[in-house]
Amino acid sequence: MSSSQIPEELETFYYTQRLDHFNYRPDSYTTFQQRYMVNSKYWGGAKLNAPIFAFFGAEEWVDDAIYYVGFLRDNAPQFNALNVYIEHRYYGKSIPFGSSEEAMRNASTRGYFNSAQALADYAAVLLHIKKTFSAQNSPIIVIGGSYGGMLASWFRLKYPHIALGALASSAPILYFNGIAPRAGYYHVVTNDFKETSESCYQTIRKSWSEIKRVAKSLNGLSILSKRFKTCKKLSKSFELEDYLDSIYTGAAQYNDPPVNVICDAIDAAAKKTDVLGQIFEGVIVSMPNRTCYDMDEFNHPSQTGLGWRWQMCSEIVMPIGHDRSDSMFQPAPFNMKEFVNKCNSLYGVLPQPHWVTTYYGGQDLKLILNRFASNIIFSNGLKDPYSSGGVLESISDSLIAVSSVNGFHCEDIHPETPSDPQWLISMRNTEVKIIKRWIQDYEADLALFKYKKVQAPKPQN
Amino acid sequence: MSSSQIPEELETFYYTQRLDHFNYRPDSYTTFQQRYMVNSKYWGGAKLNAPIFAFFGAEEWVDDAIYYVGFLRDNAPQFNALNVYIEHRYYGKSIPFGSSEEAMRNASTRGYFNSAQALADYAAVLLHIKKTFSAQNSPIIVIGGSYGGMLASWFRLKYPHIALGALASSAPILYFNGIAPRAGYYHVVTNDFKETSESCYQTIRKSWSEIKRVAKSLNGLSILSKRFKTCKKLSKSFELEDYLDSIYTGAAQYNDPPVNVICDAIDAAAKKTDVLGQIFEGVIVSMPNRTCYDMDEFNHPSQTGLGWRWQMCSEIVMPIGHDRSDSMFQPAPFNMKEFVNKCNSLYGVLPQPHWVTTYYGGQDLKLILNRFASNIIFSNGLKDPYSSGGVLESISDSLIAVSSVNGFHCEDIHPETPSDPQWLISMRNTEVKIIKRWIQDYEADLALFKYKKVQAPKPQN
Repeated sequence: MSSSQIPEELETFYYTQRLDHFNYRPDSYTTFQQRYMVNSKYWGGAKLNAPIFAFFGAEEWVDDAIYYVGFLRDNAPQFNALNVYIEHRYYGKSIPFGSSEEAMRNASTRGYFNSAQALADYAAVLLHIKKTFSAQNSPIIVIGGSYGGMLASWFRLKYPHIALGALASSAPILYFNGIAPRAGYYHVVTNDFKETSESCYQTIRKSWSEIKRVAKSLNGLSILSKRFKTCKKLSKSFELEDYLDSIYTGAAQYNDPPVNVICDAIDAAAKKTDVLGQIFEGVIVSMPNRTCYDMDEFNHPSQTGLGWRWQMCSEIVMPIGHDRSDSMFQPAPFNMKEFVNKCNSLYGVLPQPHWVTTYYGGQDLKLILNRFASNIIFSNGLKDPYSSGGVLESISDSLIAVSSVNGFHCEDIHPETPSDPQWLISMRNTEVKIIKRWIQDYEADLALFKYKKVQAPKPQN
Repeated sequence: MSSSQIPEELETFYYTQRLDHFNYRPDSYTTFQQRYMVNSKYWGGAKLNAPIFAFFGAEEWVDDAIYYVGFLRDNAPQFNALNVYIEHRYYGKSIPFGSSEEAMRNASTRGYFNSAQALADYAAVLLHIKKTFSAQNSPIIVIGGSYGGMLASWFRLKYPHIALGALASSAPILYFNGIAPRAGYYHVVTNDFKETSESCYQTIRKSWSEIKRVAKSLNGLSILSKRFKTCKKLSKSFELEDYLDSIYTGAAQYNDPPVNVICDAIDAAAKKTDVLGQIFEGVIVSMPNRTCYDMDEFNHPSQTGLGWRWQMCSEIVMPIGHDRSDSMFQPAPFNMKEFVNKCNSLYGVLPQPHWVTTYYGGQDLKLILNRFASNIIFSNGLKDPYSSGGVLESISDSLIAVSSVNGFHCEDIHPETPSDPQWLISMRNTEVKIIKRWIQDYEADLALFKYKKVQAPKPQN
C-alpha cells in the first residue's frame, strides 16, 4: 500500500533513545533514533485523563503493523484514546549504528538487541509522550500481538507505574524453558487438519515418506521438482518438505488459506491422482497465481527474518519441536545442543535458554501471580499453534484469559470487518469491557489516592 | 572480630555470575565469582517447603553485614529457615576484572556496576540455590537494609516469581527524582536535635557562622585547629564543618552516640565556655579516646566509599540538600547541575537522575500499587533521617509500612539484645507475624494451584 492509504492520520516522531539502559559504560550512552507514531484525533485530552493506547511494535516495521492492527483505531473513539505506535529497536527505521547492516554486522553491535532493552525503550518513550502531552494521569494500555504480546504482558509486570494494563494477544509467554510442552505447536497444527478432515490429515501424514521414497529413486529429485513445479531443481528433498511445512503451519496459524481450503483440494484429488498429486493440489490453492513454486519463498532474507533469527538464537529461545506419534509431521524433536551449536556458529555467542524465565518468570504462573500483579488480558485463538504456549486459564479477576476455540493468531487485534463472525465480535467486546473496568477502577483510585490529601508525615520541602 | 567469632555457622560459596545480564555482546558473557554464604542449621528441608531467608548485601563486605544483621539468625529457628547472605557485585570479594582497583579503574569496567545488574545477580544465585537444595517450592523472603532494603523491595516488584516477599528496612525508595522533598534528610536530623534539646539545637545552629567568623580572623584557622585539636592544621573551615556534619547526621541516623549524649555535653558546657567550646564538648563525647581529631576520618577511601560514590554518581542519584530556614545546618541546596558536572569530571559519564523512577517507579506509589504487587514490608524508624524518603503509609493489606517514632536506621534487622526496648520488640514481632501470614497464604495457594490438577487444555508433550 502507498502511504496515502495509511488507515489512520498519524504523525511520526523520533525519540533519542539510549542504546544500553542497564550499563554506564561510555558506549552505553550512545543513542539512536526510535520511531513512534501518534494519532491524537480521538484523544479526550489531559484534563479528562483520557487514556493512551500504546501498540508495541515487534519484529517488523511499525508502519506495516499499523495495517493489520485495528484494535487501537477501532476503539479509540469510544475510549477518547490517544493512539501511539512504537517501533521496536533494530526493526524498521529504529536502527542503531546507522544501518541494519551495520547494526547486525558483528557481535558487539547486535548485543544490545534484546527484549529487556526494548521494554526500557518503551518505558522511556511513554514517559516522554506523557510529558509532551502533559498527560501525567492518563492511564496507558499497552497492546501487542505474538512477540509484541509477550512484550506487552511483560511490560505490565515490570513497569506497572507506566502501563495500567496490557492486552497481550496470542503471546506464547509459556513457550520457554520447559513450561509448555515442546510439541505443542505442531500438535495444534495437526489437530487443526485432523479436525477439518481425517483423510486430509492421513494424506499429509503419509506424504513425507512418499517424498523421501521418490527422492531416493533414480532421478528422484528431478521427478519431485517436475511434479511440484519448483522454480529451481531441488537439491535435496528437505527443501520441499520445509516448504510444505511452512504452508501447513501458516494455514493453521493465520487461516491463510484456511485449512479447509487446503484439505478440500487434497481430498478432492484423491480419486484422480496419487499422494504427491494430492499434496500438490494443496500447494496450488495455498500459493495461487504462480507459474512455478519457489522453495525459498518463506526463507528470503528480510530485516524481520534476520532480526528474529538473532533474537531466537540469543534470548527468545522457544524450543519448538515434535516427535509425537500422532503428529501429521515427521518427527523433529528440538535438540538444544544442536541449536546452541548452530547459534554459536552463526553469531559467536551462546543462546541463554534460561534467561526469559529468570527475568520474566512463567513457571507456576497461577501460584506466583494470583496475589501479585493485575490488569493483563491474555487472548488466544485455540486454532493458533502458538496458543499451546499461551495463558489459557485466568489467574485472578484481573489477570484474565480470553480464548476462542475458533480463533487464529492475533485475530482479536486485527481490524474489524463487516464479515467478522459473532465469536470474534464477542471476544473483542469482552476485551473492551475489561479494559473499561480497569480505567474506571483507576479513575476511582485517582480520586481516592491522588487528589485526597495524603496523611503521611512528610516534611515540607 | 576474627572469623571464629562469626555469629553463625556459615558455609561460603562462589557462583559464576554473568557480568552483563542485559546484553549479548561477547564482553557481556564475561563472568566473575559472586560470594554467598549459607547456614542450613535451622532449615526444615525441601520436603516441608521450609522457607529461605535471603539477605541482600549492599555497599559492604557481606561478612561485615552479617554482624549487624540479626533478623535472619534470630528468626530462622521459628521459621525453620535456610539463611542465605549474598554479596553485591563490586563489593567484598565479589569483584569482576580481578581486583577492585581494576574493576573501578576505568569507565568501561565500572559500567556494569549498578542495581539492575545486581538484582539479576540475586535472581540467578537464588535460582541456583533452589536447584542445589532441590527446594523448588520453598518460598524466599528477601531482606535488606538501607540501599539493600531498596534492592529487596525492588526485587519483589521485579522478580515476584523468585521472592515471595521482602522486608525492606529503612529503604528510602522515594528519595529520587523529586518524589520526597530534598530537604527531608536534614530536616529529620534537625528535628532529632531540636526535640532532644532546644538549646542544643540553637547552639549548633549558631556555631556555623561562629566557625566562619573565627576562620576569617587573624590566624583563624590556627585558632580553630587548636580549639578542635585537629590532627592536621585546617586548610579551610569547611573541613571542620563537614566533620561536624558527619557527627550530627551519624548520631541522628545510627544513634551512635545518641543525640542526647551529644546534646547533654553541649548544654552542660554552656556555663563554662563559648559556642565553639560547647561544640567541641559534643565532639569529645562523639569520638572518644582520641588524642587528636582527624578531619578526614569519615572520608578515608574504602571499597564501600569508593563504590557507593560511583553508584550515587551514576544511577542512585539521591538529591539530598537543604535550605530550610529552620534547619540546624547551613543552607546547602542540592544543585543538580553542579552534581552532574562533578560526577562527569570524576567518572567521565553523566548521572541518570531519572532512571530509578523510570525503572522502579516511585511516583504515586499508592495509586500505582494498591491493585498491583504484594508482600513487602517497608520498615522505618522515624528518627532516621532516611525515613524522609521511606514508605511510611501502608499501600494495601500486604504492602505494609511498619514505622516506629523511636527507631533509627535499620534497627529492626539488627541482632536482638536483652536490652531491646518494648517498641523494638513489638516492631519485630509485627514483621514476623506478617511474614508468617505470607508463608501461610503461599502454602494454601501451593496446595490449591500447584498440586491440584490444572484444567487448562494442555497438549501432552
